[in-house]
Amino acid sequence: MSSSATAWRQPHHDGSPLYVSNPNPKLGDTVAVFLRAPHPSGVSQAHVRVVVDGEPAWFNAHVDRTDAVETWYRADISVANPIASYRWLIDGGTYNYRWVTGAGVVEHDVTDATDFKLTTFAPPPTWADDAVVYHIFPDRFARSTSRPAPAWAIPQAWDDPVVGDGALAALQWYGGDLDGVVMHLDHLQSLSVNTVYLTPIFPAGSNHRYDAASFDTVDPLLGGDDALARLSDALHARGMRLIGDLTTNHAGVTHAWFEAAVADRSAAEAGYFIFREHPGDYLSWLDVPSLPKLNHQDARLRELLYEGPDSVVAQWLRPPGNLDGWRIDVANMTGRHGDVDLNHDVALAIRATMTNVAPDALLLAEHGHDYTQDVMGDGWHGTMNYSGFARPIWSWLRAPDHSFRAPTGAPIDLPRIAGEDMVATMRAFTAGVPWDVTRHNLTILSSHDSPRAMTVLGAPELVAVAAGLMATLPGIPSLYAGDEIGLEGVNGEDGRRPFPWDAPETWDGRLLAAWRGLLGLRTQLQALRTGGMRWLHVGADCIVFIRELADQCVLVQATRSSAEPVTLPAQHFGGGRPWTGLLGAADLAPNEYEELSLPNDGPAIRLWLLP
Amino acid sequence: MSSSATAWRQPHHDGSPLYVSNPNPKLGDTVAVFLRAPHPSGVSQAHVRVVVDGEPAWFNAHVDRTDAVETWYRADISVANPIASYRWLIDGGTYNYRWVTGAGVVEHDVTDATDFKLTTFAPPPTWADDAVVYHIFPDRFARSTSRPAPAWAIPQAWDDPVVGDGALAALQWYGGDLDGVVMHLDHLQSLSVNTVYLTPIFPAGSNHRYDAASFDTVDPLLGGDDALARLSDALHARGMRLIGDLTTNHAGVTHAWFEAAVADRSAAEAGYFIFREHPGDYLSWLDVPSLPKLNHQDARLRELLYEGPDSVVAQWLRPPGNLDGWRIDVANMTGRHGDVDLNHDVALAIRATMTNVAPDALLLAEHGHDYTQDVMGDGWHGTMNYSGFARPIWSWLRAPDHSFRAPTGAPIDLPRIAGEDMVATMRAFTAGVPWDVTRHNLTILSSHDSPRAMTVLGAPELVAVAAGLMATLPGIPSLYAGDEIGLEGVNGEDGRRPFPWDAPETWDGRLLAAWRGLLGLRTQLQALRTGGMRWLHVGADCIVFIRELADQCVLVQATRSSAEPVTLPAQHFGGGRPWTGLLGAADLAPNEYEELSLPNDGPAIRLWLLP
Repeated sequence: MSSSATAWRQPHHDGSPLYVSNPNPKLGDTVAVFLRAPHPSGVSQAHVRVVVDGEPAWFNAHVDRTDAVETWYRADISVANPIASYRWLIDGGTYNYRWVTGAGVVEHDVTDATDFKLTTFAPPPTWADDAVVYHIFPDRFARSTSRPAPAWAIPQAWDDPVVGDGALAALQWYGGDLDGVVMHLDHLQSLSVNTVYLTPIFPAGSNHRYDAASFDTVDPLLGGDDALARLSDALHARGMRLIGDLTTNHAGVTHAWFEAAVADRSAAEAGYFIFREHPGDYLSWLDVPSLPKLNHQDARLRELLYEGPDSVVAQWLRPPGNLDGWRIDVANMTGRHGDVDLNHDVALAIRATMTNVAPDALLLAEHGHDYTQDVMGDGWHGTMNYSGFARPIWSWLRAPDHSFRAPTGAPIDLPRIAGEDMVATMRAFTAGVPWDVTRHNLTILSSHDSPRAMTVLGAPELVAVAAGLMATLPGIPSLYAGDEIGLEGVNGEDGRRPFPWDAPETWDGRLLAAWRGLLGLRTQLQALRTGGMRWLHVGADCIVFIRELADQCVLVQATRSSAEPVTLPAQHFGGGRPWTGLLGAADLAPNEYEELSLPNDGPAIRLWLLP
Repeated sequence: MSSSATAWRQPHHDGSPLYVSNPNPKLGDTVAVFLRAPHPSGVSQAHVRVVVDGEPAWFNAHVDRTDAVETWYRADISVANPIASYRWLIDGGTYNYRWVTGAGVVEHDVTDATDFKLTTFAPPPTWADDAVVYHIFPDRFARSTSRPAPAWAIPQAWDDPVVGDGALAALQWYGGDLDGVVMHLDHLQSLSVNTVYLTPIFPAGSNHRYDAASFDTVDPLLGGDDALARLSDALHARGMRLIGDLTTNHAGVTHAWFEAAVADRSAAEAGYFIFREHPGDYLSWLDVPSLPKLNHQDARLRELLYEGPDSVVAQWLRPPGNLDGWRIDVANMTGRHGDVDLNHDVALAIRATMTNVAPDALLLAEHGHDYTQDVMGDGWHGTMNYSGFARPIWSWLRAPDHSFRAPTGAPIDLPRIAGEDMVATMRAFTAGVPWDVTRHNLTILSSHDSPRAMTVLGAPELVAVAAGLMATLPGIPSLYAGDEIGLEGVNGEDGRRPFPWDAPETWDGRLLAAWRGLLGLRTQLQALRTGGMRWLHVGADCIVFIRELADQCVLVQATRSSAEPVTLPAQHFGGGRPWTGLLGAADLAPNEYEELSLPNDGPAIRLWLLP
């Protein structure tokens, strides 16, 4: 593995424009790929192995250019299959027969699981390159008006405490609504947010609405279809986007489909669900009876839900919703039970419908563990990156004196790990998917299903470091509403605290400023959005990486405490020119030894720009 | 990763009977899995994470038993899907939140690629547990009679040198035949061989016959169908088995199907191939025009080749062939071209036909690189394990002063690597597949497509070490005819040297005796065939492992040179009892420090037995 204090010395390749001539080739295209070998690596030859029709094919690389600090190798490879799986083989100097894969420089033979992957799949919409998402749980964000409580609900005042577990957690009703979101778009834009993701807005029997009673209308408690249109219009008028949340794994027990299915075993709707024994024994999400699992083997169900222009998936991409994309709930379990696995087919079908009716729409998936086999870019464009982003960052930055369970339910407290292990985990996951997927995974630090970052990390300074990683690592930043002011919560339910609009004195103003600054830089600097990603230093308490385009580089350092001193050779990074410190960081100029000597205090997130 | 000088201290699990209560569960079964934690590991809790319907589920493990040297944890897990993907999570002592996967103890979060895998697929035939394969290239093994040369051939005397490359290599005809094999079954049995694998025996236009002119009859040059019946009968009379070789990726250009396809674009046969432009431009194996690629999208082709009881696959499992299995040539490319990938479907269809007509037949696949995604046990039972066996052993044992290209065509000489890297590679591949697959992969050291082990390793003592690893590691030993007497060859063609039956003075008698002894032990000792597999010491020049059943343990040490001293705690390995040395190794008794002190000279392969 590549992670080390001298990571910068290692030969590097990724899927960004510096290294791949065409990130979205057609079948049969030839693509130039490049390997960067810093001096003195001693690399004297490089080759690319591409799996073509199931057999390795070799492409020789030649020196494309060389200068005082590094040599670039180039190979022209064939993209013969929809997923071109490739890796470099290098030799010479300190590298005797070494592979370079998505996991870095690998010292022994490995499976193709970490090969680089170039695909012929249609790329995600270009607007997603620049997206900064704000993740809203509607009942708790903002309330525009008072409404009578529904039958299922236990009404709450806006400042009543949330209940963090048990049956009550789903029934507390605070009455946030969609016009409430409209009221606060200035706040979102102050954070450089340009995309809103709403958890479900369909009528249901709970405050989270993942137990949909219908997919055809917006819950009147949220303002109904008209309120959605108002929100959608307000966002689009500002050049912003809106993403909805659809539960394809299950419906709610009060959904008309399920009621019809239970009432009559011969009804068409009985086929939409999976009865072990009608009517009482049916498959449901994690055996929760109120969430009956949908049967994707049923043609009519598929048609209603996502196949064709009249489906649920399609209809909300038109008025009144005009959604710009979907986040699919429990995507990882959708279509999977026993010996049935239609998951990939469902993803492809949803994507196909979206491509037909709204080709610019984005399709994201919930996935809480290993998503690499499920997200190759032909179905879901990206996923909620708990495994390769949130978890390793929580584990690196978590407060030593707190104890936390990870949201996937691991029965042991989340460990505190060194930077080397955090980066190894991140690389394990990025290596499993195409570059386009890594760039379109949601880089999350909290969600409505997880503890709040502030609670996990225990200090606003550490949340700011995490926010800095969200703003600077590849992926679509996704800020869970309230994290910017330091809301707390020990788990998903506890973290669904109403946004305290009327108590700004409770907000962490410094943290809010940090979020604004960091996400602002993300929006300002193209390299942070589409640049290459190279690890330069990986230590226990300090990591350094660089995001690079041909005409813009951003150097990023994150420390969790005071850390080891880090120096980089100035000639390699900027050719001896000074780097401009951002967000108050001091400029970085070469010292008398022609080194860039980085600060070693912490916790801190620092960025420097060139030119 | 677990590889280290103290590997024996690490918690261990594998798919063998000591650790899995039912290796072949049905869907919905509960299976007890066990983790062994040697003292003093300090492990204080263990859990199993199983991916159920796409979501991690947790099963708590409790202490099943404990004694002076180790604690065994047990968890009862659900097998809810055809492949149950699972891993252990341990905590306590030196193990703070560590995963145990097929790759060993893992220090950071990883994808599920290396999870243990328990499947509901029908297991391989039980006879394969005990199989020792002898791999014969018929033209070069033995000649029972003289025959007139066919038109394509350049006849050779038996002791003429082979040509190692170029067009001539495929045309040299030595006239080995099937009755020649019958003549030498005593020799095979002297090696404990009980299964013969024949490279293709269908009529063709070359000595290798991978360019089949027909799949319906045995080449008259080999003695025809009658000779196959004689060989099959002779083998079965001795309780031995016979495996054929079928090319599903392509036919020969002289095959009647291809001739009909070329002659008439509207012929049914034109659909069996893949014409870019009829008749001259068609897909072929690695663009070799004499090997036109078969089109598995064609229903009639599938029917002829492998679907149903009249197919080629089925017919040869009946008289006159009575084959006990198939090895599928170029299995890795079969059904794959461009955006078409029917590989898994083809494997399932061949397997289904075999299950129907000969449920006891074995299905093996050629695969030269990463087979882990293609061999889960539902289609091919196993593969030719170049990647996870031959290559790492070649690289560990290869002569420092030779240089070799690996047969997959890597453009850099095969490196010489340390034992740690060899074992890491082996574990990377075993971790990717179910235990049943690892046990039914062919553990090869040479093949008709590779250099000979003797030439790669450069010394018979090193070949004996490699033979020892073949005899003792999980997998089906597969000895390429001639390796037992030290035949040489710098590549596949060069290695296809006629077996020098009439020049026994050229045989390496000590090497032959070593093969006989080692494969004899394989046949004698159940633990070597079905026992667990635990690494105890992994060093640069010496590796030690143990194969274990409840009532039999075999300790194995391999050195490539004089090596570091290795000691194991006697209480952990045999409870202080002495181990019986096999094949002339001295017995191993605890020393005054209650340690087993292993010899450190080499190259050597040593085995000790308990009780």
